[in-house]
Amino acid sequence: MNGEATASMKISPPYLLFLGDAPDRLIAKTASGVVDWAPERCAGQLRLTGRTVDLGLPEMSVAQARDAGVKTFVVGTAAPGGQFSEAWRSVLREALEAGLDIAAGLHARLNADPELADLARRHGCTLTDLRDPPPDLPIGTGLPRPGHRVLTVGTDCAVGKKYSALAIWQALREQGADAEFCATGQTGILISGRGFAIDSVVSDFLSGAAETLAPAAADDHWDVIEGQGSLYHPAFAGVSLGLLHGAQPEAIVLCHEAGREEIAFFKGYRTPALDAAIARNLEAARLTSPDCYCAGISLNTAGLDDAAAQALIGETEARLGLPVMDPVRTGAARIAERLLQGRAGT
Amino acid sequence: MNGEATASMKISPPYLLFLGDAPDRLIAKTASGVVDWAPERCAGQLRLTGRTVDLGLPEMSVAQARDAGVKTFVVGTAAPGGQFSEAWRSVLREALEAGLDIAAGLHARLNADPELADLARRHGCTLTDLRDPPPDLPIGTGLPRPGHRVLTVGTDCAVGKKYSALAIWQALREQGADAEFCATGQTGILISGRGFAIDSVVSDFLSGAAETLAPAAADDHWDVIEGQGSLYHPAFAGVSLGLLHGAQPEAIVLCHEAGREEIAFFKGYRTPALDAAIARNLEAARLTSPDCYCAGISLNTAGLDDAAAQALIGETEARLGLPVMDPVRTGAARIAERLLQGRAGT
Repeated sequence: MNGEATASMKISPPYLLFLGDAPDRLIAKTASGVVDWAPERCAGQLRLTGRTVDLGLPEMSVAQARDAGVKTFVVGTAAPGGQFSEAWRSVLREALEAGLDIAAGLHARLNADPELADLARRHGCTLTDLRDPPPDLPIGTGLPRPGHRVLTVGTDCAVGKKYSALAIWQALREQGADAEFCATGQTGILISGRGFAIDSVVSDFLSGAAETLAPAAADDHWDVIEGQGSLYHPAFAGVSLGLLHGAQPEAIVLCHEAGREEIAFFKGYRTPALDAAIARNLEAARLTSPDCYCAGISLNTAGLDDAAAQALIGETEARLGLPVMDPVRTGAARIAERLLQGRAGT
Repeated sequence: MNGEATASMKISPPYLLFLGDAPDRLIAKTASGVVDWAPERCAGQLRLTGRTVDLGLPEMSVAQARDAGVKTFVVGTAAPGGQFSEAWRSVLREALEAGLDIAAGLHARLNADPELADLARRHGCTLTDLRDPPPDLPIGTGLPRPGHRVLTVGTDCAVGKKYSALAIWQALREQGADAEFCATGQTGILISGRGFAIDSVVSDFLSGAAETLAPAAADDHWDVIEGQGSLYHPAFAGVSLGLLHGAQPEAIVLCHEAGREEIAFFKGYRTPALDAAIARNLEAARLTSPDCYCAGISLNTAGLDDAAAQALIGETEARLGLPVMDPVRTGAARIAERLLQGRAGT
């Protein structure tokens, strides 16, 4: 962080995406998400080996990136053991010496590394640790505030809350709305250039952090907020509830992965029925947003063939009486329409 | 913290309670709570002025405390502006030079003060910042674990969750049970000598912290866990939910202040009806503790005269069919009995 009293990180494009020796898109999922959703922010990629995954961007050295006007060197892959290897360190050093900012979401913090911190200071660069929320977050107020807000909520972690929020954001803009994506995790921050990792916030400030993330806005402005966790998750439901209360959404969109019957990595914890999950999320949301409604459902149907996916989407729509989308297969146009109609459309 | 890999703070008695220039018990509420609930831990008090509140302990200088075998110098009052004044600093210095540990829950951290940190190192003393949770907390597992656990939950903050848990803990011991008080806030930590401030934990680790606080125990052991916040609190419900899920209580006790109709400092947010609050807490608790039940209600009736208090307690018992206590007026014997009978008693 550069020490300014900002309530949100700001990452300047264009980016050079550093892929290290990541063998596939899963290990380089941060970079991969940025390329998918914010290609206009990505000037090039830097791969350490010939076997490193190729995201299809122009190959660039640090010097080439600087000459091409790159502002930020983005670590887009996990580090082995969460630490910088020596091979990485020399590239990070080179980036700072070229005057680039660095953004990373590693366990080892850039700002805690004396050599990198010193180099950054001498070259006037910013080191952004995406896992560190801004200091001096307030506690929540629960006060109503103007502007439209929609939050994606989930039946579990990693069911598509970020992709769904991004698709809704895109669809709202395509339909002429003034919409912004509010990131709550590191990939989202790099995609939008702002936001912060809500699950890294000290518990006392959870709702205040969410209020800060999506503050009072113009009456016709939309903030589309990336959800985290699930009210049904035995480890992370507290994060989800604090975010829900602070977001004060006028609408939620429930996200689920088709076929996932158990909370991932938590044996014996079943994912909820969609109608039960909607009811419980609305009951919780209405503490701070009394008229909150569900604008639709987002099903991640990546594991199904097209016919099965379309059948499931149709069946779910008929059963629950709500628009159902898949962020990749169908896009979010109908849910965006519903949002723009407002509660009257429900 | 002394750097050992402990999941919980350990504060060694006996204590010298430092009261600074606190004019009343409210400003010295940390010290006051320790004197009320753990008088056996308190060897003396140190007051900076003749107008400082008197908690009835022997007056002691630092030297007298050392000679009396005191182990820990406890800052039992709020600091003006959260910082140490010069008058305070000289006493803190003296305590370390006398070989005493220091424990404080101030905004300004003891361990971040170079002079105090250096003195502590040289004299082999421990500086404990009660607001800093232990490092390396795990994420929650949601796995069942042996031992009995009861958690106090609330309709709001500051309705008596700590006092109720302490009263239940005492009553369980009086009835022959092996019971421990698990503190989640700084006063509680000083009372029991262990625990940590759950609301200072990074959100991701909330439930894991609660699992650590009240770990697997013998089949006949009781952990009585101090609740925090309220599921109905617009700023702090996330903390309450994470604690509830990680505590995995077999029973909850709902705490309420008689007559409080609005969440304190949150205008327009009404406190819930007791039956609704029990239902919602049980619904949430049953995610990780499927048979969780409500063992009773604790009403803080300090604002009522004795006749009105007894009438309210009787009326509430009749209406809800649960034992109702006031931690000060009635003690917790009947709720402890109910807990020892187990769910069969409900």
